[in-house]
Amino acid sequence: MTLFSRIIKGEIPSYCCGEDDRHYAFLDIHPVTRGHVLVVTKREEDYFFDLSDAELADIMAFSKRMAKAIKDVFPCKKVGVAVMGLEVDHVHVHLAPLQAEVDMDFGKEKLSLPAEEMADIAQRIRTAFEEQSF
Amino acid sequence: MTLFSRIIKGEIPSYCCGEDDRHYAFLDIHPVTRGHVLVVTKREEDYFFDLSDAELADIMAFSKRMAKAIKDVFPCKKVGVAVMGLEVDHVHVHLAPLQAEVDMDFGKEKLSLPAEEMADIAQRIRTAFEEQSF
Repeated sequence: MTLFSRIIKGEIPSYCCGEDDRHYAFLDIHPVTRGHVLVVTKREEDYFFDLSDAELADIMAFSKRMAKAIKDVFPCKKVGVAVMGLEVDHVHVHLAPLQAEVDMDFGKEKLSLPAEEMADIAQRIRTAFEEQSF
Repeated sequence: MTLFSRIIKGEIPSYCCGEDDRHYAFLDIHPVTRGHVLVVTKREEDYFFDLSDAELADIMAFSKRMAKAIKDVFPCKKVGVAVMGLEVDHVHVHLAPLQAEVDMDFGKEKLSLPAEEMADIAQRIRTAFEEQSF
């Protein structure tokens, strides 16, 4: 079972930002910026482009809703998207609020935020996510 | 009209890697790695998440086909995806073949390849893209 499947099952704790029946979203514990969220598929799949076209459509529609919640909590120019997947072999989409392209620079030193702040951020995003009408 | 719309119209030259009626793909002229392709929407839209769910599904299905062509030409672990959009206000998806996460590091110095090599890369990707059966 992948690390992310263990997170989804609750065996490993995470700062949940929202979910539906096919996706789970939580804070990246090594964020590039405040509000950096990972969206993962509940079905274990390694490579993003091995998802079916329908699954790709689904995860993008979910990510769009999540991006709206992130932007509500962290006003920004745009919410950026990145999919790499070389560290954990389970599809995950990075979403991060951007003021400048450098905010998505995964090579720079990551933030390390106190647990209280992480919990607060996740709760605000989750609330914004759940309050959306769609 | 955006820079990318002028590229799509052919007013500004580009190394075309494939297209359909709603998307145009071409080589990033400042690639992070060989095989770094941009997929743009033919319809001008600024922000990725302002695309409709159907348009998001479309651009991902097209990007999946393009990623397959890139992987054929540049064998790699995965083709990575990035959407930032702070430099040109017209939706564009970065696709790049990855051997390591650092290959998607937009902060590092970009490659500058001779025109002959760019033309050759684009032609090989375009051929792989067009030869796909789907």
